[in-house]
Amino acid sequence: MKYPIETVRHSLSHVMAEAVIKLFPGTKVAIGPAIDDGFYYDFQFAKPIQPEDLPAIEKEMRRIIAQGSEFVRKEVSKAEAKKLFADEPFKLELIDELEEGTITIYEQGTFFDLCRGPHVASTKDLPADAFKLRAIAGAYWRGDEKRSMLTRIYAYAFANKQELDAHLKMLEEAEKRDNRRLGKELDLYSVHEEAGPGLVYWHPRAGRFRVELENWWRSEHYRNGYEILFTPHVGKSWLWETSGHLGFYKGNMYAAMKIDEDDYYIKPMNCPFHIMIYKTQLRSYRDLPLRWAELGTVYRYERSGVLHGLMRVRGFTQDDAHIICTPEQIEDEIAEVLRFSLHMWKTLGFSEIKAYLATRPADSVGDPARWDQALESLRKAVETQKLAYEIDEGGGAFYGPKIDLKIKDAIGREWQMTTIQFDFNLPDRFDMTYIDADGQKKRPYMVHRALLGSLERFFGVYLESTAGAFPVWLAPDQVAVIPVGPDFNDYAVELNNKLRSSGMRSIAMLDEDRMNAKIRRAQQLKIPYMAVVGAKEREEQAVSVRCRDGKQLGTMSTEAFMSYIMEKIAQRSLDL
Amino acid sequence: MKYPIETVRHSLSHVMAEAVIKLFPGTKVAIGPAIDDGFYYDFQFAKPIQPEDLPAIEKEMRRIIAQGSEFVRKEVSKAEAKKLFADEPFKLELIDELEEGTITIYEQGTFFDLCRGPHVASTKDLPADAFKLRAIAGAYWRGDEKRSMLTRIYAYAFANKQELDAHLKMLEEAEKRDNRRLGKELDLYSVHEEAGPGLVYWHPRAGRFRVELENWWRSEHYRNGYEILFTPHVGKSWLWETSGHLGFYKGNMYAAMKIDEDDYYIKPMNCPFHIMIYKTQLRSYRDLPLRWAELGTVYRYERSGVLHGLMRVRGFTQDDAHIICTPEQIEDEIAEVLRFSLHMWKTLGFSEIKAYLATRPADSVGDPARWDQALESLRKAVETQKLAYEIDEGGGAFYGPKIDLKIKDAIGREWQMTTIQFDFNLPDRFDMTYIDADGQKKRPYMVHRALLGSLERFFGVYLESTAGAFPVWLAPDQVAVIPVGPDFNDYAVELNNKLRSSGMRSIAMLDEDRMNAKIRRAQQLKIPYMAVVGAKEREEQAVSVRCRDGKQLGTMSTEAFMSYIMEKIAQRSLDL
Repeated sequence: MKYPIETVRHSLSHVMAEAVIKLFPGTKVAIGPAIDDGFYYDFQFAKPIQPEDLPAIEKEMRRIIAQGSEFVRKEVSKAEAKKLFADEPFKLELIDELEEGTITIYEQGTFFDLCRGPHVASTKDLPADAFKLRAIAGAYWRGDEKRSMLTRIYAYAFANKQELDAHLKMLEEAEKRDNRRLGKELDLYSVHEEAGPGLVYWHPRAGRFRVELENWWRSEHYRNGYEILFTPHVGKSWLWETSGHLGFYKGNMYAAMKIDEDDYYIKPMNCPFHIMIYKTQLRSYRDLPLRWAELGTVYRYERSGVLHGLMRVRGFTQDDAHIICTPEQIEDEIAEVLRFSLHMWKTLGFSEIKAYLATRPADSVGDPARWDQALESLRKAVETQKLAYEIDEGGGAFYGPKIDLKIKDAIGREWQMTTIQFDFNLPDRFDMTYIDADGQKKRPYMVHRALLGSLERFFGVYLESTAGAFPVWLAPDQVAVIPVGPDFNDYAVELNNKLRSSGMRSIAMLDEDRMNAKIRRAQQLKIPYMAVVGAKEREEQAVSVRCRDGKQLGTMSTEAFMSYIMEKIAQRSLDL
Repeated sequence: MKYPIETVRHSLSHVMAEAVIKLFPGTKVAIGPAIDDGFYYDFQFAKPIQPEDLPAIEKEMRRIIAQGSEFVRKEVSKAEAKKLFADEPFKLELIDELEEGTITIYEQGTFFDLCRGPHVASTKDLPADAFKLRAIAGAYWRGDEKRSMLTRIYAYAFANKQELDAHLKMLEEAEKRDNRRLGKELDLYSVHEEAGPGLVYWHPRAGRFRVELENWWRSEHYRNGYEILFTPHVGKSWLWETSGHLGFYKGNMYAAMKIDEDDYYIKPMNCPFHIMIYKTQLRSYRDLPLRWAELGTVYRYERSGVLHGLMRVRGFTQDDAHIICTPEQIEDEIAEVLRFSLHMWKTLGFSEIKAYLATRPADSVGDPARWDQALESLRKAVETQKLAYEIDEGGGAFYGPKIDLKIKDAIGREWQMTTIQFDFNLPDRFDMTYIDADGQKKRPYMVHRALLGSLERFFGVYLESTAGAFPVWLAPDQVAVIPVGPDFNDYAVELNNKLRSSGMRSIAMLDEDRMNAKIRRAQQLKIPYMAVVGAKEREEQAVSVRCRDGKQLGTMSTEAFMSYIMEKIAQRSLDL
């Protein structure tokens, strides 16, 4: 019989608890749920355990699995439950909160747990070779830092050994590609705790990537009917009171700065600024749709504990846009935003994309008819693009429904990037209007859209997905010119200048290292092309070209090499 | 006899005071200096005067001039002075502060004044037709808002009528070109008091200008050996304490934001961030020079009273760069920065440029030998470029000497834009070092450089200098396609699409207005080219082209028109 993976993971957590209690008698148990890639269980040990204890627990788990104990479900009264768990203070607290008549326990072997289930029928239904205890971590009881600190044991668990192995391999690969590691190795960025955690400094090599990316982003936006705005990074409290951010978003905002008796806030979002520009004129239906984009750097407060490399930061540049349009235009506009987003992701090399459509929550603002029209336009757009999608019922923000796009990276991880989000709140709060064909003032639709999400996080994801081997058009260095020996330094310089004056990002490696060391260095720097030059190449005004992935392009004339690369760049080719 | 213009202006201020006292007996006098374009005098009137009173004062001044009273200088004792000015409380206060033996008065006609002089010999030496009373304004005695509010009368004054007329014409022209006026007329930018004064919102049409400008700026910087960085807008107090800004610059900084018990400040300058990147690695002399540029948006506190359109703001994007180099490299680097700056200004259409070289002030930091070398490199660079220059002795910042460049705009005004500034302070404070060829740790030179200054102010100056008639490469709209009548709307759309798909910023004017009204509108919007299309043009796949300045390019094939414009764009031509 085949069980859902969540059930397998959950049952394994009970098995782990049984093993722990056997090996560490007197240990108190808290809770042990399934999670994304396995499970955990929180324990209170009599004395601390160490990572070195994990293999013994794993071994004991395998013994329990092999012995094939049945999982037995029992319904019990509150009084019975309290008696059964008299020695388990955490369970007693949970029991207190349960309703009479809903309490069940599951028992297997020497262990029983307060649990709603379901579970597998027998421990022998569990895959003994498809789990692995991963780590010990501290965790507060019920996540409350004022309660007891418990010991959490994390484990990976999958349906079979192949899946576990694939996952472990992915993790190993992810570790190698960690953006913090590559950021240092490739001299791309830094974060300085002493000058403020979560704030990213883009170094020259990352700057080249970003300038290229921004140029492309801007020209694509112009080509696709957007205008580009530049707005301030700070606004007076009036702006944030009007927008409502000081009500529902203050906890995510940086603290106020007092200037001339007024409170100013550094912006967590660009929207109110775009609306201020909208309101500088009386707008007609003829002016709509407006598609206004900005690479707007915003600052949001995050607890310093959750900050992480490029992935979770306190300051980031959103590739933001706002679509302001009439109800008649909304369906086409949404379809167009989604099409445009997919076009951009495809150019960057991502094709496995899934949509998550979040609908109206219980507490929400805005006309129900507009919610329906909005949701319908989102659904149609997703279906037209034949995207796989899931619906998150009630998962929308209070101000409107949305689609999020998750992209799958080169090692199979999903990242939520693009968001397309209706806003029924701000147009009301700022009293945005347009004059319709019938001469009446009407309320436009407003849609927020971030395509890459933020440049910082996108850079992190792209760095990890490509392991730093960017396509040539985005590569910080595109060509490394490598002389076979010092006699050819002059020719290397000449060639390098030629490449540079054609606009290519080329470097000449002229130091005392041997050719092979230079090639290795260029490969470590993930430079797409290595142009090796010696006597033959100098004589023929040629280069011998190898790619960072080992591919050899052979010897070709300098002109042919330049055309070759320039075409790859012009096409934004993903291949070398 | 020819007098310096300052002497003429100063003498005219005495004449104005004489006229005022004659016409408004009992008026008390304060001070009356020469200023850049004329003079003023501060009075305390018994009852307020009005702008309508100015012509009578002017007339009385001309009468005084015509009568040819001599200016007579007298040395007086403090006691005599006090007696003479017994009824003039402001003069008495000034006399109290003077040293015995240094007090002089100047007398002409019925008026005498406490004054150091010099003056012209006689009122008939003053040009009766080359001054003009300009305005009445309030001014605090000694600029102190706790003292009396006086009435200041401003006047223009020049050596002769032609110069005055030229100045008045320039002012009239400046008024028409006022960036606040053009900003509205051309829908370029807005400032929103309620959301924070002095903060500029770039509208779509200005966004297109800025994107074009930034693209050019970035590509020129790469071409000229710079790297481009992106750094955060906020930094923890540690950063600003280390840099010293919290000591010597705090009054210009926005107030602190408290985050996790730390004070954060929004940046008034980019330098400390660039230094943090410098310090992420051990640097070798081989790595130098580093030329690191950033379009870094900074925020500085200015009193709200001095804020003015795009010219004086609280938030602006510096086109900043830092050069970090060895002492051996500094002369070449400075020469190169200056050459590069002049190249950029020339491309933008400015050729009348003057340099102001500011030398070591009394209080300064840094090795005197380095100050000398720095100053020498600045002077050599200016001389190599054959720039007119003035020396401002002791006018440098405490941390290093500098050159400022002033450019002359189309109506003859000078604007200080580029600054090239040595810094002997920050490299010490951050302990910046490099390893020299001899293996020793050494201190690099560091130079700050802003070329356009700030994008906001540059945009303001450029807007006023060109009156919004930007060269085609920077124009928000490059072509207006205008059908001669509604029958040709289809062809206009077709042509417009063709131009747009070639990357041109083109609009089709398809509304109900008549052709001539559309041409006027396009001219008002300063769109460089108007492509008029009717039957003949449609038949021949052609356009009839006129330029915004009235020049007619005649009828040409669509292809020829597109090549014509694309070449103007590619060349960044200043002509149409």
